Amino acid sequence: MADTKALTTRAADFSAWYNELIARAELADYSPVRGCMVIRPNGYAIWEQMQRALDQMFKDTGHQNAYFPLFIPQSFLSREAEHVEGFAPETAVVTHGGGKELEEPLVVRPTSETIIYAMYAKWIQSYRDLPLLINQWANVVRWELRTRLFLRTTEFLWQEGHTAHATEAEAEEETRRMLGVYRTFMDQWMAMPVVTGRKTDSERFAGALRTYSCEALMQDNKALQAGTSHNLGQNFSRAFEVTFQTANGELDHVWNTSWGVSTRLVGALIMTHGDDAGLVCPPRLAQYQVVIVPIYRTDSERGAVLEAADRVRKELVAAGVRVHLDAREGMKPGAKYYEWEGRGVPLRLEIGPRDVAAGAVVLARRTGGKKETLPMEGLVPRMFQEMERMQTDLLEAARARREANSIRGATKQLFLDYMEAGGGFVYAGFCGSNDCEAQVKEQTKATIRVLPDEEFRSVPAPATCMWCGRPSVAEAVWAKAY
Amino acid sequence: MADTKALTTRAADFSAWYNELIARAELADYSPVRGCMVIRPNGYAIWEQMQRALDQMFKDTGHQNAYFPLFIPQSFLSREAEHVEGFAPETAVVTHGGGKELEEPLVVRPTSETIIYAMYAKWIQSYRDLPLLINQWANVVRWELRTRLFLRTTEFLWQEGHTAHATEAEAEEETRRMLGVYRTFMDQWMAMPVVTGRKTDSERFAGALRTYSCEALMQDNKALQAGTSHNLGQNFSRAFEVTFQTANGELDHVWNTSWGVSTRLVGALIMTHGDDAGLVCPPRLAQYQVVIVPIYRTDSERGAVLEAADRVRKELVAAGVRVHLDAREGMKPGAKYYEWEGRGVPLRLEIGPRDVAAGAVVLARRTGGKKETLPMEGLVPRMFQEMERMQTDLLEAARARREANSIRGATKQLFLDYMEAGGGFVYAGFCGSNDCEAQVKEQTKATIRVLPDEEFRSVPAPATCMWCGRPSVAEAVWAKAY
Repeated sequence: MADTKALTTRAADFSAWYNELIARAELADYSPVRGCMVIRPNGYAIWEQMQRALDQMFKDTGHQNAYFPLFIPQSFLSREAEHVEGFAPETAVVTHGGGKELEEPLVVRPTSETIIYAMYAKWIQSYRDLPLLINQWANVVRWELRTRLFLRTTEFLWQEGHTAHATEAEAEEETRRMLGVYRTFMDQWMAMPVVTGRKTDSERFAGALRTYSCEALMQDNKALQAGTSHNLGQNFSRAFEVTFQTANGELDHVWNTSWGVSTRLVGALIMTHGDDAGLVCPPRLAQYQVVIVPIYRTDSERGAVLEAADRVRKELVAAGVRVHLDAREGMKPGAKYYEWEGRGVPLRLEIGPRDVAAGAVVLARRTGGKKETLPMEGLVPRMFQEMERMQTDLLEAARARREANSIRGATKQLFLDYMEAGGGFVYAGFCGSNDCEAQVKEQTKATIRVLPDEEFRSVPAPATCMWCGRPSVAEAVWAKAY
Repeated sequence: MADTKALTTRAADFSAWYNELIARAELADYSPVRGCMVIRPNGYAIWEQMQRALDQMFKDTGHQNAYFPLFIPQSFLSREAEHVEGFAPETAVVTHGGGKELEEPLVVRPTSETIIYAMYAKWIQSYRDLPLLINQWANVVRWELRTRLFLRTTEFLWQEGHTAHATEAEAEEETRRMLGVYRTFMDQWMAMPVVTGRKTDSERFAGALRTYSCEALMQDNKALQAGTSHNLGQNFSRAFEVTFQTANGELDHVWNTSWGVSTRLVGALIMTHGDDAGLVCPPRLAQYQVVIVPIYRTDSERGAVLEAADRVRKELVAAGVRVHLDAREGMKPGAKYYEWEGRGVPLRLEIGPRDVAAGAVVLARRTGGKKETLPMEGLVPRMFQEMERMQTDLLEAARARREANSIRGATKQLFLDYMEAGGGFVYAGFCGSNDCEAQVKEQTKATIRVLPDEEFRSVPAPATCMWCGRPSVAEAVWAKAY
């Protein structure tokens, strides 16, 4: 039975709201295994929609899927110096298999660069084999001390793209292309605007030349790193001897990229659009875009109402709408409304005896506003219009909220006050020194999310470092982050 | 570059043929991790098509996807006595996480009954929560000593359905329903006929009441268990205290089923349809259903031919055909034919200058026969007809081969001779004793694949046990197996 106690409000306790929303909507649950979550059907359905959209975008940009082993020999991880330093402390290690102790322990993949580039060394001989554009959908494990459902769990699901190119320029182009794919997905499907740009060295992927990121601002004004794309240069191809014969007959190391997004995006979706009634899911990613709730008292009403409701359902299905008719007995319409609101279904159609008689249905939008009576005639195009509009409105609302919580050209004092008051995105000059970055983090918990791409930069560019006053070498976007 | 040495023939060495075919078609590769394979893009594409078809069939029968943890506390495995006996010896065990030794070792899931039913205990309270119909797509690990690509690997990909029901009858119905789904998939998509039936106790899933199986006969006359569906009774619900309040207000344990198929099916596909030229992929599961090879010598021919080829490609794409135009430069048409044959593409269209002039294309079928010149006009419906026919023909050919390699009513001597001569399916009377089963296995390596469902049984039923001569209690299908 549905829990009918109201959720803790976002204003009262954002973190409690987040956890209660997930429990109420049955998106995920804690498992008996430390740090590992169970993704329940309602949560997994959102991930499936995300996968489907992203997978098509990967294929449209020339990538193919493959699958590499879960286990990585411990020695592989050590071949790239930064990589092992970054990942070894958080690995899960298999020491026994088939009842015997293993000669070499196996690491459960925290990411797959090492095992994948070991295979690429075998597959790539000539420039004709390049570019090699492969993606993998997989589970990975990183031993986390503090976990949160979807956002940070010991095991999570993700995709990791791994590509090999003949030139540095092609690798850089691919790195940027896939960052663009992520941004488009987050904009168009998640209705979640992001700031893109480059990470500073302290936030760079362990083993990469350059890391680019999509950063979104959650409703509690903390940033969430939503997707990253790495130009790996020749770091891994040197470590794993991935060489190829160039068109000129010389031998060179390939240039690699890797890029990934994870089930963390479900958490991002919740914290971008959710309200005090529960999840709000953008129509393009909703398991059910429309739910139909029949309303009746007597048996004769029941027959007529269910018949009409099912007719509407069939019409919508035929048009490609993901629709569910909630014909559960013994549950009041109000309880159903409450449940579907908590689960974030974009549109609800209510059908009662008077509606059937009038050839009408009542529309309620998850994003609020007055209920509206619509003629059954022409319902299909109307539902598409409503979904289009909601998708656009959600993106606009999220963008407006982010902009209302972003400041530019902050001084040090303004920065401190802003972070103290709750934070948001702060665009400010940066001298480029690790010291400044470290001091800010220590004093305010804020970090540089990205050195933003040109379109996000302030004009004119800030002249001095917000923190130390020395000349600025790049504008930075600062925020506290998940 | 493509390897141009001919494959070892099936007749000469079936096992070498199988391995060479996989390497040549780039379906999979050995990894540096013991017993783990890499599924390469060409192989993964087949698995993706399989997943897509099965997933839709699962959803059409009311199931939802979810995701449960990779790791299982070692103690969980022990709660069901048969289950731990069956699986504990072949597990991989994580003893260290985040740099520390774990208090309780974690088993990498060999199958997920235990962790899933532990969650069901939390989610199920009332008969209103039933049936609970969940499927998971996941990787699992079973420490195998002797491995073969796709057929038996330490890690493999699969789906595992796990359902909970209020009554024993409903659980049995679900177990049979999903066996039927598998059979339909294998028939209609894989063009692989199967015999269905019940497993004897010695081949039953560890922890199940009853196991049902789909058994296919490979070209080397060994059987392959292609999919299983288990009625788990209340074994796991008792072990994990999964109880519910019945409509009468009493407390009862739920009735469970589980069912699964794996990447092993790709191996089954290869060994069902492959020929000495390589893979033969049924059209419904092919990554590319049609490949177009342009033929030209001069630059002016090149322009006209590629233009026509691309026009054909676009028409086929628009109609929903999975088509690839192989426009690689510097590679002769013959080399392309050879490569695509090895990869099993059902239909090849060759287009040269004379074809362009005549508004025609040349069709070659992967299953052989004369090439045929077709008008470009009406090509789309023709391709669908060709695919339909090939799909049907492959199923019929596989069924005819299986029937030609099945015998009924065998005596002991005939059985011995038949197994000695290579084997196949032997339908014979069985007394039901473990002793007979064990003796046959010891002497001939053949096992009872299933006690077949009614439609497969001999009429009249065999009266005596093929081995001991005592009265038969059930007909059995015997074979050597993978």
